[in-house]
Amino acid sequence: MPHIQVNKDLPGIRSLMAFSPRTAEPMGALAEALLRSSDGMTPGERELIATYVSYLNDCFYCHHSHGELACYYLGGDRELVDQVRKDYTSAPISAKLKALLNIAGKVQKGGKQVTPADVENARSQGATDKDIHDAVLIAAAFCMFNRYVDGLASEAPTDLSSYGPRARQVAEKGYGSHIYANQQP
Amino acid sequence: MPHIQVNKDLPGIRSLMAFSPRTAEPMGALAEALLRSSDGMTPGERELIATYVSYLNDCFYCHHSHGELACYYLGGDRELVDQVRKDYTSAPISAKLKALLNIAGKVQKGGKQVTPADVENARSQGATDKDIHDAVLIAAAFCMFNRYVDGLASEAPTDLSSYGPRARQVAEKGYGSHIYANQQP
Repeated sequence: MPHIQVNKDLPGIRSLMAFSPRTAEPMGALAEALLRSSDGMTPGERELIATYVSYLNDCFYCHHSHGELACYYLGGDRELVDQVRKDYTSAPISAKLKALLNIAGKVQKGGKQVTPADVENARSQGATDKDIHDAVLIAAAFCMFNRYVDGLASEAPTDLSSYGPRARQVAEKGYGSHIYANQQP
Repeated sequence: MPHIQVNKDLPGIRSLMAFSPRTAEPMGALAEALLRSSDGMTPGERELIATYVSYLNDCFYCHHSHGELACYYLGGDRELVDQVRKDYTSAPISAKLKALLNIAGKVQKGGKQVTPADVENARSQGATDKDIHDAVLIAAAFCMFNRYVDGLASEAPTDLSSYGPRARQVAEKGYGSHIYANQQP
C-alpha cells in the first residue's frame, strides 16, 4: 500500500506525479531530455542504462517499464534486455555501451566509485564527453526515480503484460504530462 | 580533475549544467519546486534535508552549498546546520522535521528502507502526505544531484568562505538558469 494517498488507478511513478504535478513536470522533462535524445547514444541504449540501474536498485516498476521501452526500441528483443539486466558483459552489445554500463553501475553505488580508468576505458571504445555525461546522469536520475517510486511504496502492476502497451505509448508520445494525467492506466 | 571537459570557472554542478543546458533546465526547475516552496515545510527545512542527504552521500560540494542555504534561511545558525549533518536527533529542531529526516536517511540508503512505522511516526508528529512526499523526493533528488556532481568528478571549491555569498544569490534569485549560465562563479 502506498505511504501516501494517491490515485489507485495509476501505477508506479504515475500515481506520484499525479499527486505532485509541480515536481512531475520537470521530472518528465528531464526523462524526455535524457532518454529520448538520439544525440550520441540511441534511445534504446539510454533505456538499457535506465533498466540496468533500476534493476540494480531493485525497483520492480522501473526496471520493467524501462525494460519494455528498451525492448520496443530494440525491435522486441526481450532476451537481450534481460541479459543486460543480469550480465551485460556477456550481452551482444557494443564495447562502448558495455563501458558506459560499467560507469552507470558505479554511479548506482555512489558518484565517487567512477574512476579515471573507467572513463578512459569508455573513451577508448569511442565514448565522447557527451556519452559519458549522459550515462552518468541517466544512472544518477534513476537513483532518484527508483527511490521516489519505492520510497513512497507506490503500487507496481504484477501482470507483466501491462508494461508493453504502456511502453509503446511512451515511445510514441514521450515523457510528457500524459504520463501523470489523471486517467486510467 | 573533472572526467569531462567543462568550464573551469564554474564549480560543482554549475560546470555540468553549463555543459548540458538541456538537462540543466529541468534539474533547476525541480530544485526550485522542491526547495523553494513554503507549502508545508519551509525552505530552511527543505535545505536541511538536502544538506543531510548530501552529507550522507559524502558530496562535499552539495552538502556545503546547501548547508549554506539552510544557514541563510535559518538566520545564520551554522552550528545548527552542522548538528543536523552529524546527529539531527539531538538538534533543536521540531519532532516533525526529525521524523522527516529519518525518512530522508532511509531513502538515501534505498527506497524500500522506508517502513510504514517511519511514515506513521512522521504523521504522529504532524507531517502531512505532502510533507512525506516532499521529504522522500528531496532525498531522492539529492541521490541524483550528488551522484551527478561526484560521478563526473566536478571541482568543488575548498575555500568554504566562497559558499556563503553564492547561497545568498540562490536564496534571492532561485535555482534558475543563472546557476549554470556561462559566467564567473
